[in-house]
Amino acid sequence: MADQTDTRTSWLAPEELEVVRAQVPMVYVEAVPVRVDALGQVTHVGLLLRVRPDGSLSRTVVSGRVLHGELVRAALLRNLEKDLGAVALPRVPPAPAPFTVVEYFPDPEVTGFHDPRHHAVSLAFVVPVDGDCQPSQQSLDLAWLTPEEIADPAVLAEMSGGHDRLVRMALAHVGCLH
Amino acid sequence: MADQTDTRTSWLAPEELEVVRAQVPMVYVEAVPVRVDALGQVTHVGLLLRVRPDGSLSRTVVSGRVLHGELVRAALLRNLEKDLGAVALPRVPPAPAPFTVVEYFPDPEVTGFHDPRHHAVSLAFVVPVDGDCQPSQQSLDLAWLTPEEIADPAVLAEMSGGHDRLVRMALAHVGCLH
Amino acid sequence: MADQTDTRTSWLAPEELEVVRAQVPMVYVEAVPVRVDALGQVTHVGLLLRVRPDGSLSRTVVSGRVLHGELVRAALLRNLEKDLGAVALPRVPPAPAPFTVVEYFPDPEVTGFHDPRHHAVSLAFVVPVDGDCQPSQQSLDLAWLTPEEIADPAVLAEMSGGHDRLVRMALAHVGCLH
Amino acid sequence: MADQTDTRTSWLAPEELEVVRAQVPMVYVEAVPVRVDALGQVTHVGLLLRVRPDGSLSRTVVSGRVLHGELVRAALLRNLEKDLGAVALPRVPPAPAPFTVVEYFPDPEVTGFHDPRHHAVSLAFVVPVDGDCQPSQQSLDLAWLTPEEIADPAVLAEMSGGHDRLVRMALAHVGCLH
Repeated sequence: MADQTDTRTSWLAPEELEVVRAQVPMVYVEAVPVRVDALGQVTHVGLLLRVRPDGSLSRTVVSGRVLHGELVRAALLRNLEKDLGAVALPRVPPAPAPFTVVEYFPDPEVTGFHDPRHHAVSLAFVVPVDGDCQPSQQSLDLAWLTPEEIADPAVLAEMSGGHDRLVRMALAHVGCLH
Repeated sequence: MADQTDTRTSWLAPEELEVVRAQVPMVYVEAVPVRVDALGQVTHVGLLLRVRPDGSLSRTVVSGRVLHGELVRAALLRNLEKDLGAVALPRVPPAPAPFTVVEYFPDPEVTGFHDPRHHAVSLAFVVPVDGDCQPSQQSLDLAWLTPEEIADPAVLAEMSGGHDRLVRMALAHVGCLH
Repeated sequence: MADQTDTRTSWLAPEELEVVRAQVPMVYVEAVPVRVDALGQVTHVGLLLRVRPDGSLSRTVVSGRVLHGELVRAALLRNLEKDLGAVALPRVPPAPAPFTVVEYFPDPEVTGFHDPRHHAVSLAFVVPVDGDCQPSQQSLDLAWLTPEEIADPAVLAEMSGGHDRLVRMALAHVGCLH
Repeated sequence: MADQTDTRTSWLAPEELEVVRAQVPMVYVEAVPVRVDALGQVTHVGLLLRVRPDGSLSRTVVSGRVLHGELVRAALLRNLEKDLGAVALPRVPPAPAPFTVVEYFPDPEVTGFHDPRHHAVSLAFVVPVDGDCQPSQQSLDLAWLTPEEIADPAVLAEMSGGHDRLVRMALAHVGCLH
């Protein structure tokens, strides 16, 4: 799958992507990785720790673009593999409807979800993950936090672009909002 | 869990259940067991084959009552285990909302969902099942059918009480309606 | 509809209800009334103000039992009318699936949703309301608060039994969690 | 809103749209317009009647592109107005999650949803419509059919590109699949 991905993205050069981004909204997928117990109840949420261009740390969920010709499910799986490694064993849900749709704009005032690069329409899913997760080289760490720990304002403050809201919406969806 | 179940139901004798059923709606859970591929797409639906009191055969999904004091998730898991065996490894979804709510009435005209015993409000879930399924002694067989096979009118005709509609609603929910 | 309701409940005397409540979970519906703008976006949430038995004030959403023989939709509409008056013009959603299911137990530790009277399984809906709302005699007031106002800890503290979580789950579902 | 729309689309010339379409998936919205009764139950589905380029007739739902900088809700409302007229009074649902996501490809084999022009990711909503609908000049007629009438194979055969499946998925979602 990695080869296929490289091939697909290679023919859309960065400058071409710039042009396209200015003309239509981009389709994104976002996955909130979770650990569940035997009853299916969420016990932990996985947050990636990254270094921002300015050197500060930020926590984020799995996220990426849906490529031309790619199924939403395949994009989800590809981005989960990219961020959590090849043996994470994610369980992409059987239903195609996301639990929410998040709209990112360069102007942070429009929806509160902010991406300086472009207008993106993001389909967000909660994805149970059973396997061993090894965050990719783009991330410093993957931390598994309980729903209670995520309610901590200090943790929420480490997420940017509206991801704190997205994670709380995911927790509300699975009945674990604190 | 079996012992706990026996204890709980034992104090609600059949004649007591009769009385209660005439006074309030019963809470039920229903699970449509599915096999999924690596992308999470449903490939097969599991249908139990049972003998009706009149000797005819019927196909049905996993179904059962939520007991007093029991979590909906625990009722789902208990009924999945009862009908599919102890090593079916069902994946109860992390979100508590069912994909639909089905209302059964003794009068088949009210909703088209019919249960001669009582008025029941049933929370319906699609449940991916990974393990080995061994239908309990109450069932003759568990058949795994593709979404295409289930669209066959002959198969749909083997379901009663509105279960053919319930299964098609589940297939619609997972994007596999034919 | 009022007459019909009286008739139905009259044959289930309070002492009978006590007995039934101890044997099976009760089916409830809950409606979070909202005002929406032309785009369908929630602008305000309606909260009823009530006096608790101990004299303190509490804020709550529309809530009530599904009666024997009653459709979930009819129970929703009946309880909306009971709490908001006859000209509230509620828009019961076309889909039968609730946005979440809340499980109330006499023991507040089980789920965090607490009802000292019984075990109840509650189907929760967000219901846009267009008309003029006149809270019934059981309520002191109906206040329309913005999503931002509801995020105020002082407001959340006025809700009990887990209703603060239910309202925030509703706001998350409609994309307005703050 | 019409002016704003004209402005937005005018700067993306048809030949530019061609180029973009070959590089990224397009974001679409689709609305299945419905009439509901006082309980919120769907009684009729609105289908637009159009003439295909080859002169044959086809039935379709409301559909259109999400423009750069446009909210999904605004795109829904704009396309509803375009296809049903200015006084249709559509009720865009308060929740941002679509009931399903449909993926259209130029190759009809990928998902069964087919659009010869491009790869599109479409967010599908059921939208109750209260007002007077006047189909635009692009349509010959708007017909309101009952769920039973839509189950007629002759009616389903008049929809193309997978719209028959989309409409049945919408009916399943609202509990009215026949």
